[in-house]
Amino acid sequence: MYQIELCLSPVLFDYRKLSAPFTTVIVDIFRATTCFCTALYNGVQSIIPINDLETLQKMKNQGFLTAAERGGKKVSFADFGNDPNAYCNAPEMAGKALAYSTTNGTVAIGKAVESGCQTIVIASFLNITAITDFLIRQQQNVLILCAGWHQQFSYEDTFFAGALAERLLQNPNFDTSDDAITMACILWNNGKRAPLETLEKNSSHYHRLLGFGITNTLPYALKEDICPIVPYLCDGVKVQLVKL
Amino acid sequence: MYQIELCLSPVLFDYRKLSAPFTTVIVDIFRATTCFCTALYNGVQSIIPINDLETLQKMKNQGFLTAAERGGKKVSFADFGNDPNAYCNAPEMAGKALAYSTTNGTVAIGKAVESGCQTIVIASFLNITAITDFLIRQQQNVLILCAGWHQQFSYEDTFFAGALAERLLQNPNFDTSDDAITMACILWNNGKRAPLETLEKNSSHYHRLLGFGITNTLPYALKEDICPIVPYLCDGVKVQLVKL
Repeated sequence: MYQIELCLSPVLFDYRKLSAPFTTVIVDIFRATTCFCTALYNGVQSIIPINDLETLQKMKNQGFLTAAERGGKKVSFADFGNDPNAYCNAPEMAGKALAYSTTNGTVAIGKAVESGCQTIVIASFLNITAITDFLIRQQQNVLILCAGWHQQFSYEDTFFAGALAERLLQNPNFDTSDDAITMACILWNNGKRAPLETLEKNSSHYHRLLGFGITNTLPYALKEDICPIVPYLCDGVKVQLVKL
Repeated sequence: MYQIELCLSPVLFDYRKLSAPFTTVIVDIFRATTCFCTALYNGVQSIIPINDLETLQKMKNQGFLTAAERGGKKVSFADFGNDPNAYCNAPEMAGKALAYSTTNGTVAIGKAVESGCQTIVIASFLNITAITDFLIRQQQNVLILCAGWHQQFSYEDTFFAGALAERLLQNPNFDTSDDAITMACILWNNGKRAPLETLEKNSSHYHRLLGFGITNTLPYALKEDICPIVPYLCDGVKVQLVKL
């Protein structure tokens, strides 16, 4: 029987109960992991997560395509921000590597990499079924790591974690004794009949993004299975598609 | 308008959004804060929270009454454990100071003290109305700090936080923009018609305590307003009753 556990913030990753081996699932649906799925599905060859903007600037100077967001907004020197629209139709990115830095999402990835976690995948509603199927085939414990907002609890990431946990727990090989998973499943069940309205009501980051004039990418982030891929962190360096 | 915020674990206290001044409300209903309320209501003069057992042993040698719990069980050298029954009818404690160390509850108190937080109160279902009334009179922002379990999310403490937040938000002077408070209110609303059955279903610590043969103090911890007092941390050193 494989256990599922949920870290509600990257800072809680150090206090996880699961011991290795487990698969870490990175969640930042508004909007890093939604963008990663969109970009890789639309032809980007790989994404290199970068924590700090200084390193990202150097990579831009070396000729890399770059994407960066801080506080929900595009960083001025970067080629792209954190808007999935930009990755839907961008022939200039096809087959290229994209160096990417965000406020919360790449911090969560960095945390999992530092810990020596062997298997790290990127999840969003856009690839929820592909991720579920991958985790079932993987036959390992699963740790869902929510990026949150500046290390704080985020409603939307926990809501997604509940959706993913509910699917896994329908499989007889998965179980949980984790209070955070139980809570996330309650949030998901409480809102799954109207996900957009639920996040409009309960997610403060939804309103932060609306305040920046971002509107159409919020319903986009809730579209299930439009990018049926499994982005996979290879060698702790870059995110690319797993060979299924 | 005063803001309410929730820290789901002591380790998240360092990442709080609220800036001073605010009142910190310590929550560890299974069972430190339930015991504190019971002991002070039943005549203990003050409680001195102690983080480590070495210091507690020294205080015992100096003649202090001591209470200690680790992993849910009484520490052998201590006079008392974390069982509220022990504090209901204990004439030998009347008017005395009690040095107290627990796995999670006193860690949360220590975190708030270290940060220089000026006003720290102890909450449980046993004093929920007294605490609510105190916070309303206090006219300050409120930070609810859940002790959790070894820094991890705890269902029962978050459930209580939802109960307290719901009461405060009925007052027109309180508001929240915190996703964790929103989540806690959903947990509370989801289970408030049958609190004991809800925690039996969803709290892993409930089952850990049951496994130790602890049964009657779990329903006890859900009894509202049987100890209508406000335990208050004075000078960062000891918990005693606030002068109302």
